[in-house]
Amino acid sequence: MTGTMLALVKERPERGATLTKVNIPSIAEDEVLVKIDYASICGTDVHIYVWNEWAQNRIKTPHIMGHEFAGHVVETGRSVRGFKEGDFVSSETHIYCGHCYQCHTGHSEVCQNLQILGVDRAGAFAEYIAVPERVLWKNDQSIPAAWASIQEPMGNALDTVNSESVAGKTVLVTGAGPIGVLAVGIAKAFGATQLFVSDLSDYRLDLAKSMGADFVLNPSRDDIEAVVREQTHGIGVDVVLEMSGSEKAMHQGLKALTPGGRMSMLGLPERPVTIDLTNEVIFKEIRIYGITGRKIFSTWQTVSRLLASRIVDPSPAITHQLKFEDWQTGMDAMVAGTCGKVVLQIAGR
Amino acid sequence: MTGTMLALVKERPERGATLTKVNIPSIAEDEVLVKIDYASICGTDVHIYVWNEWAQNRIKTPHIMGHEFAGHVVETGRSVRGFKEGDFVSSETHIYCGHCYQCHTGHSEVCQNLQILGVDRAGAFAEYIAVPERVLWKNDQSIPAAWASIQEPMGNALDTVNSESVAGKTVLVTGAGPIGVLAVGIAKAFGATQLFVSDLSDYRLDLAKSMGADFVLNPSRDDIEAVVREQTHGIGVDVVLEMSGSEKAMHQGLKALTPGGRMSMLGLPERPVTIDLTNEVIFKEIRIYGITGRKIFSTWQTVSRLLASRIVDPSPAITHQLKFEDWQTGMDAMVAGTCGKVVLQIAGR
Amino acid sequence: MTGTMLALVKERPERGATLTKVNIPSIAEDEVLVKIDYASICGTDVHIYVWNEWAQNRIKTPHIMGHEFAGHVVETGRSVRGFKEGDFVSSETHIYCGHCYQCHTGHSEVCQNLQILGVDRAGAFAEYIAVPERVLWKNDQSIPAAWASIQEPMGNALDTVNSESVAGKTVLVTGAGPIGVLAVGIAKAFGATQLFVSDLSDYRLDLAKSMGADFVLNPSRDDIEAVVREQTHGIGVDVVLEMSGSEKAMHQGLKALTPGGRMSMLGLPERPVTIDLTNEVIFKEIRIYGITGRKIFSTWQTVSRLLASRIVDPSPAITHQLKFEDWQTGMDAMVAGTCGKVVLQIAGR
Amino acid sequence: MTGTMLALVKERPERGATLTKVNIPSIAEDEVLVKIDYASICGTDVHIYVWNEWAQNRIKTPHIMGHEFAGHVVETGRSVRGFKEGDFVSSETHIYCGHCYQCHTGHSEVCQNLQILGVDRAGAFAEYIAVPERVLWKNDQSIPAAWASIQEPMGNALDTVNSESVAGKTVLVTGAGPIGVLAVGIAKAFGATQLFVSDLSDYRLDLAKSMGADFVLNPSRDDIEAVVREQTHGIGVDVVLEMSGSEKAMHQGLKALTPGGRMSMLGLPERPVTIDLTNEVIFKEIRIYGITGRKIFSTWQTVSRLLASRIVDPSPAITHQLKFEDWQTGMDAMVAGTCGKVVLQIAGR
Repeated sequence: MTGTMLALVKERPERGATLTKVNIPSIAEDEVLVKIDYASICGTDVHIYVWNEWAQNRIKTPHIMGHEFAGHVVETGRSVRGFKEGDFVSSETHIYCGHCYQCHTGHSEVCQNLQILGVDRAGAFAEYIAVPERVLWKNDQSIPAAWASIQEPMGNALDTVNSESVAGKTVLVTGAGPIGVLAVGIAKAFGATQLFVSDLSDYRLDLAKSMGADFVLNPSRDDIEAVVREQTHGIGVDVVLEMSGSEKAMHQGLKALTPGGRMSMLGLPERPVTIDLTNEVIFKEIRIYGITGRKIFSTWQTVSRLLASRIVDPSPAITHQLKFEDWQTGMDAMVAGTCGKVVLQIAGR
Repeated sequence: MTGTMLALVKERPERGATLTKVNIPSIAEDEVLVKIDYASICGTDVHIYVWNEWAQNRIKTPHIMGHEFAGHVVETGRSVRGFKEGDFVSSETHIYCGHCYQCHTGHSEVCQNLQILGVDRAGAFAEYIAVPERVLWKNDQSIPAAWASIQEPMGNALDTVNSESVAGKTVLVTGAGPIGVLAVGIAKAFGATQLFVSDLSDYRLDLAKSMGADFVLNPSRDDIEAVVREQTHGIGVDVVLEMSGSEKAMHQGLKALTPGGRMSMLGLPERPVTIDLTNEVIFKEIRIYGITGRKIFSTWQTVSRLLASRIVDPSPAITHQLKFEDWQTGMDAMVAGTCGKVVLQIAGR
Repeated sequence: MTGTMLALVKERPERGATLTKVNIPSIAEDEVLVKIDYASICGTDVHIYVWNEWAQNRIKTPHIMGHEFAGHVVETGRSVRGFKEGDFVSSETHIYCGHCYQCHTGHSEVCQNLQILGVDRAGAFAEYIAVPERVLWKNDQSIPAAWASIQEPMGNALDTVNSESVAGKTVLVTGAGPIGVLAVGIAKAFGATQLFVSDLSDYRLDLAKSMGADFVLNPSRDDIEAVVREQTHGIGVDVVLEMSGSEKAMHQGLKALTPGGRMSMLGLPERPVTIDLTNEVIFKEIRIYGITGRKIFSTWQTVSRLLASRIVDPSPAITHQLKFEDWQTGMDAMVAGTCGKVVLQIAGR
Repeated sequence: MTGTMLALVKERPERGATLTKVNIPSIAEDEVLVKIDYASICGTDVHIYVWNEWAQNRIKTPHIMGHEFAGHVVETGRSVRGFKEGDFVSSETHIYCGHCYQCHTGHSEVCQNLQILGVDRAGAFAEYIAVPERVLWKNDQSIPAAWASIQEPMGNALDTVNSESVAGKTVLVTGAGPIGVLAVGIAKAFGATQLFVSDLSDYRLDLAKSMGADFVLNPSRDDIEAVVREQTHGIGVDVVLEMSGSEKAMHQGLKALTPGGRMSMLGLPERPVTIDLTNEVIFKEIRIYGITGRKIFSTWQTVSRLLASRIVDPSPAITHQLKFEDWQTGMDAMVAGTCGKVVLQIAGR
């Protein structure tokens, strides 16, 4: 397919981005061209937009941002066997090699030759995107396209919740950003009996509440550990999901965690943190799970079912649904932290 | 039973200990009196001996040290049902309450009302010890008494090795102290395909070698990560067992660890450590297990079988077997780090 | 405590039972006397009542039946440390020895010296019961006493559901008896995305529906496998919970199960069954879990939280709440299968 | 590559096979042509050779048999990215689709669109074979080619041993055929403390002994359960690996299994079996795992390491190493059961 399309392009190595016309990408023989219905803004896109240090080192301009999306297949390469025109799809953004040790042992999310959609190649804030077949995911027809566009971050939330079962457990989520509040909805759907959420923003705590949190706590006012102990007969929580990247929140979480409990970490601290391993981890026999990416495709399978069955309703977490032309409104909200997931309608707007 | 016995007593709040006569302990109705055959010196005993800060805060003098032992039952309290005179026994040293959340959910090793043998009550460097029935363990008759006396620390080694299976995995053990070298023997017996050990002491590395290490590395000479990568086709190890408590070793371990791998931590850092969680743990999807104590009694069951079947031979790790009167020689070796396990023969010497 | 009490007694080796006066039991030093508020009828009690072959071989008359209950401690033996007068309690019915291999390795539910409450010693259909401290469970104060009396069978349901996580999975429950419908409520609370239930009784299917089943199927009318496949995109279910003991249901379950799935079996077939292991199990790589009893006390801990948090509401499953004197009504309903759980109010009626 | 090659061909739908000249296969663009060094005879090949009922229904003549091999890449299709001429390779024989539910959730060994090498397409008893890239495995250079040719069945053995850890466990292997004796070697390498093997053939029991079995038992002479109990302090074994497909052996295994134990089943009963689920499985809380195929590629990764590190030495299990022309000798031994693995040297003979 040839012609031009509208895309949100990082044109120059500086803060900002431009909605402009570019060529529709051509596809390799093992790739598929997707016409995008909805795309959703990730923190990574914000890093590229504001042009932080990580972006300066990693991104080559001009670059099309975005990697969370849902759309329909419009063209398939000649070796593509599993998809056809018209298929309703989304995509895993970690393009794995399939041949390294990690890929061979069920850890393709940390493939040693990873290429990332919207980071290392052209992304999804555009009318069309080219995607290798091996990372393409066929969506359940019953899932609204806007919801389908957030399956990728919802997969992060799922893997953080689910590194061990939360069924019948008490849970503290530290950090109620977009992925944090999705984790709240999933943890409640999976049987968390008491779910605490902490965040410095009352706006975000309200989102967490609307996604099912039992207790919302603001460390600027509340003593997290004290409230957790009071509500759990002094035991503390079984599980901490660290979604903030804040060192303070991490220590609050470790304090609130009962001996023998587990902490899963998705939030990315910007600098090294100091931990009293002996007392915070070893003597308490804590298990810590670093989480990145998603299991390909078992996580997608589960996320799809959660949405198709409606046992998780992500609507309260999708605070902004905007037309592509209004992307700046969404990006500003992301920068300010005054939003949950921001979804851009690209086709049919 | 009444009378006096020989015991190694911390008489005053200062460095040192005294072999002296004290009363044989009386037993409560749920306790058992054990005549000790062998006792083994633990790092905790060294802390008490040198009277470090932890000991100053925890130990009340006069105090009988020691908690690793094997012996024979000579008297049983009236409510004791599971043991009788003549039984060959050792003891778990974590006296759990049985009623807290941790005890109810399979984590009595981190019981919230823990009392520790030889720390919070009279210990095993003595001719007799009183032990509550619920922590007593009946030894396999085929295990030599000197070996039976080190089952407790061998249990620490086992739980560190076994927090996930090592079968078919590559393993790095950082720290070849007494428990580290026992972990070496266990990891090899459980199917580690390549086992690396790092330590600053060549003496200890030799012990590790004799316990089955495939590669011994001294960080003062060797680049741990480089050697590991060279020997593992660039992959790194699947498993790190951190037995040193050294921050440097911990970072060396995390560097040598392949993405998706796990690290178990038994070594106790003396002060908080600094970790780059984002790059060392989260982006690599590492799992970290804090390990303390032993599973009561599933760990004991396994240790017993390893020794009874001889699939682990701990002999090279037992570098000193001394008569009770020669305890000072053993304690000096422990302080100097020029030993593996030091075992004291108490009865029949 | 001395005096007489009302109890439902199996007086003679024949069908039937008698509500009569007997002596209040005396307690051993490690036991507790409980005044019973509510007791619930189990299938085992029905076996004793109708005097089937199993009962004839196992039960010695005269015998007090019943083992599911909630009550308050009125007296404690002298070695009891964890409970005091006034405590609100229930009891595990598997009185384990604490010294066998199974007890030592976390499987006390299959202890090799098991004594069962209400089977091997006097039971709970009485105003008072004597119970060893080690199987006593302190109830959460917020749980209604009638609910607390069904925690024991709810534990069976929990362990059947939870032998692996059901979060995000599709589930078929074969058999909607009292424990089956409790399993329905738990599986939904733990994140089953589609839950199918099969039973020959429409009454029971209605109970299952009221406990949250998504699809109820009657094999006398419905083709179980066909419906399951139609509703799961042809995949089949991930999980089968076999609660009926019926060979037909077992085969229907295995047919409906997707390759790589698991089946947990709690229902007890009355005679040996015939399985095509090659095609029904091995080539499909199915995992089968036999389930009996409950994990002591981790299962109790979870059941308690499910009820205290109200994330499982067992009310629809408790179809009969009767005064002790009306026990015959409840027993008749149990025999006829026209009930869920039948609860008898004993104190304060 | 064009020309002819020697191949063992099932020419007609009847017992037998013929070593004859056929065309070298051509490769599709995602396939690789391999020059075979060694191929090994599987039970499946025997089924095809003797032309049993299964073979009659599944195999279309003329057909090249064989699927266990090691060789070198001589040609690659144009879309092949991970392999090049000269690579030392073997192949997974389960050619999975990559798009079904099982493939998406880590169970490609039970892919719903499975095509099997040497069954549904031309096999490895030939000088050359065409194999899709996605099932090709790069061999460790240090593994002898004859050993490399048996990695596929060794993978079956591994997955049977390893469905749960055997470290520190007691194990009974029922059936000492070629895969059974490989399982013996693996279970010992992974830390089984006592390993029992039962078989009706003393020849096979000798093989099991040479692979490390601690006790070999012939049910025609020995009471399996009695010996197991005597040697395990009355406990029974923790693990049964059923490799025989015999109903009698299955019951012997279930009897010898301790409550709470697990049985993994790889042997394929020829007809439905009768099990007393209530007493043999449910009341004993047994876990049963059906095993088929291998995890792609995590099982291959582990098998490769076991051979490269020599912690499993399969030599005693390879009883016959024959030149291709002598295939009939090997096939006869397989039919008679008087062999372990039979390996055919194809190149360089």
